[in-house]
Amino acid sequence: MVGRRTSVARSFQEQHAEGKIMNQAHVKRIEKLQAAMVAANVDAIFLYSEINRNYFTGLTTSNGLLLVEQQGMPVFYTDFRYIEVANRTLKGIEIRKFKPAKEQLADYSAAATSWKTIGYEGNLTVAQFLPLQEAMSGAKWVSISTMVSALRSVKSADEIDAMRRSAAANDALFADLMDTFKVGMSELEMLRHFRMKMAARGLKESFSPILCAGTNAVECHHEPDETILKPNSELLIDMGVIVDNYCSDMTRTVFFGEPTARFREIHDIVLNANQTAQAAVKPGVRCCDIDAIARGVIKDAGYGDYFGHALGHSVGLEIHEQPAFSATCETVLEPGMIITNEPGIYIPGDVGVRIEDLLLVTETGCEVLTHTPHEIVLPC
Amino acid sequence: MVGRRTSVARSFQEQHAEGKIMNQAHVKRIEKLQAAMVAANVDAIFLYSEINRNYFTGLTTSNGLLLVEQQGMPVFYTDFRYIEVANRTLKGIEIRKFKPAKEQLADYSAAATSWKTIGYEGNLTVAQFLPLQEAMSGAKWVSISTMVSALRSVKSADEIDAMRRSAAANDALFADLMDTFKVGMSELEMLRHFRMKMAARGLKESFSPILCAGTNAVECHHEPDETILKPNSELLIDMGVIVDNYCSDMTRTVFFGEPTARFREIHDIVLNANQTAQAAVKPGVRCCDIDAIARGVIKDAGYGDYFGHALGHSVGLEIHEQPAFSATCETVLEPGMIITNEPGIYIPGDVGVRIEDLLLVTETGCEVLTHTPHEIVLPC
Repeated sequence: MVGRRTSVARSFQEQHAEGKIMNQAHVKRIEKLQAAMVAANVDAIFLYSEINRNYFTGLTTSNGLLLVEQQGMPVFYTDFRYIEVANRTLKGIEIRKFKPAKEQLADYSAAATSWKTIGYEGNLTVAQFLPLQEAMSGAKWVSISTMVSALRSVKSADEIDAMRRSAAANDALFADLMDTFKVGMSELEMLRHFRMKMAARGLKESFSPILCAGTNAVECHHEPDETILKPNSELLIDMGVIVDNYCSDMTRTVFFGEPTARFREIHDIVLNANQTAQAAVKPGVRCCDIDAIARGVIKDAGYGDYFGHALGHSVGLEIHEQPAFSATCETVLEPGMIITNEPGIYIPGDVGVRIEDLLLVTETGCEVLTHTPHEIVLPC
Repeated sequence: MVGRRTSVARSFQEQHAEGKIMNQAHVKRIEKLQAAMVAANVDAIFLYSEINRNYFTGLTTSNGLLLVEQQGMPVFYTDFRYIEVANRTLKGIEIRKFKPAKEQLADYSAAATSWKTIGYEGNLTVAQFLPLQEAMSGAKWVSISTMVSALRSVKSADEIDAMRRSAAANDALFADLMDTFKVGMSELEMLRHFRMKMAARGLKESFSPILCAGTNAVECHHEPDETILKPNSELLIDMGVIVDNYCSDMTRTVFFGEPTARFREIHDIVLNANQTAQAAVKPGVRCCDIDAIARGVIKDAGYGDYFGHALGHSVGLEIHEQPAFSATCETVLEPGMIITNEPGIYIPGDVGVRIEDLLLVTETGCEVLTHTPHEIVLPC
């Protein structure tokens, strides 16, 4: 690694033009990261997480390290299992095989003589971090989680395309389930149908789906159990799939039978909060202000105490990303951000409703990536 | 938390007798952990990982902390989502709601005046660890990963029962797939069938299954792709499911058509390595010696260079646990350990065979938990 900085003068862009590097999107991402490193005075960044390595290179491997400096080529380290695929797909990136731990640390240590500040990911494990910190104890270690999540928050055209396809696949799977779920089924039976139909479509889930029959809908993170879906009752379904690594996320609260006045009342308020928030989403607005708008609608209707979670979270390679529509998130919206809009009202022993869409921030407002209708009433 | 040590004189065992605590198995686990803490001079342990919290309490929650001292009741911290279920199921354990981060750290800091050595899990994230370390900077921080994995390595009767059921469910699913997989299918089609049949049985996978048609079997961690299963060729299947939180793991290398002499030769050697290792497993033998026995069989047959991974790994709540049948693992086998026995030979461009069973170490030897036949030849 020593001497790499001086020996590599060409930018990624130049190398890409020569056809020697991954693809344009990844080149841009690495260059943006390097610009952020310059701005924050971070000399080197150790990226171990599978998701971040995938984001910056396009390659998914269970073990690896992308070591990025302010200039020049990053180095991708991995083990014998992935050396071949890395050499084949990461043209332009220097590929090295991990040495035994002590030798590897000695290499970092030698390179670190020119590093004053080194960045780590907050989700790095202590077992990985402490030996690094010890081997490079002369440097200041700083978390770069916020730096990377800020880059990841604005999706590229390719990412938006994948998110659209993920949301569409989720819509289609949901429609299929609406033809399958019947009064008399248990939540676990419905979970089984969800997984069978998902598998038949070659999809994976972005999180374990939440299926709440009747008053179970008041529990935000209910685990599916033997509860039976009864006639004239509600079913809350919070589900998402993964398409080309990108996650979708949607919630609908469906009624089987003739909706009660109480259900209609609460559903209308939640939908109003969802629509009012959606109408306010545009570049330049702070995330916390969108949360406050939805919360205001629910509070004005008299149910402020029954909406206990944030309005939404960003979604992409991971199901929970930054920024969030929460009371404390002051991030200003930018085109390309994709955030859930999921107000809810949960009244213990009575009724629970959540309605969740995926919103893409556009130049002038937002586009709703979720196309499933909000109001669904099925016969029982 | 302050003053808790002096106020709680009764043991878990006594409290359990009064019907105030989880179940007998969890009580014993916590007492064993506390005995290990005394032996290692560790005053307090912070257990954040979902798996370890589940192991010591039986409760699964996505967020929580089990704080254990050498004596008395541990404290279980969690957020508003799980307080109710914790109060309902963790009788005898003190339940507290997480305070805002600063207050929470101040509480730890106050309690830590009596702690000289504090244990952390190696898989704790840096973002969680550094604030703890700073708030309790007077203490020495030590990894307790080995201490906990040693406890988890010896399975209780309940755990062994769950492992048996997991292995049996995997055997049954495999048999079903053998009726389904046909020459002409792609690896991805077979993956889809695997997931559909698994979902129909209400099961989840313990890892993403490895399906290798033909010479793809030489890649240890091949990702299923469009490769078609051809007539007179092999299919390597490495798969496992989860039953009541416990993982299974099995590999078979099946032949579709009339096995070639080359396939038979390599399969016989691998099976011989598997059987020879199995016959040597009993309490008192070191893990590395079992690895050496299997490796010796393959080396003696002339294929030592083509067996590049360890012979096996422990399995339980996680798919990869300690100890391992590896060249460097000197752990001595004890009854109740459950370890995979998975020799393989991978000759690039030629043939790849792996045969993997789950072995339970018994008082006198071992019991094979996997009941699928080793040699499977199907028509093409």
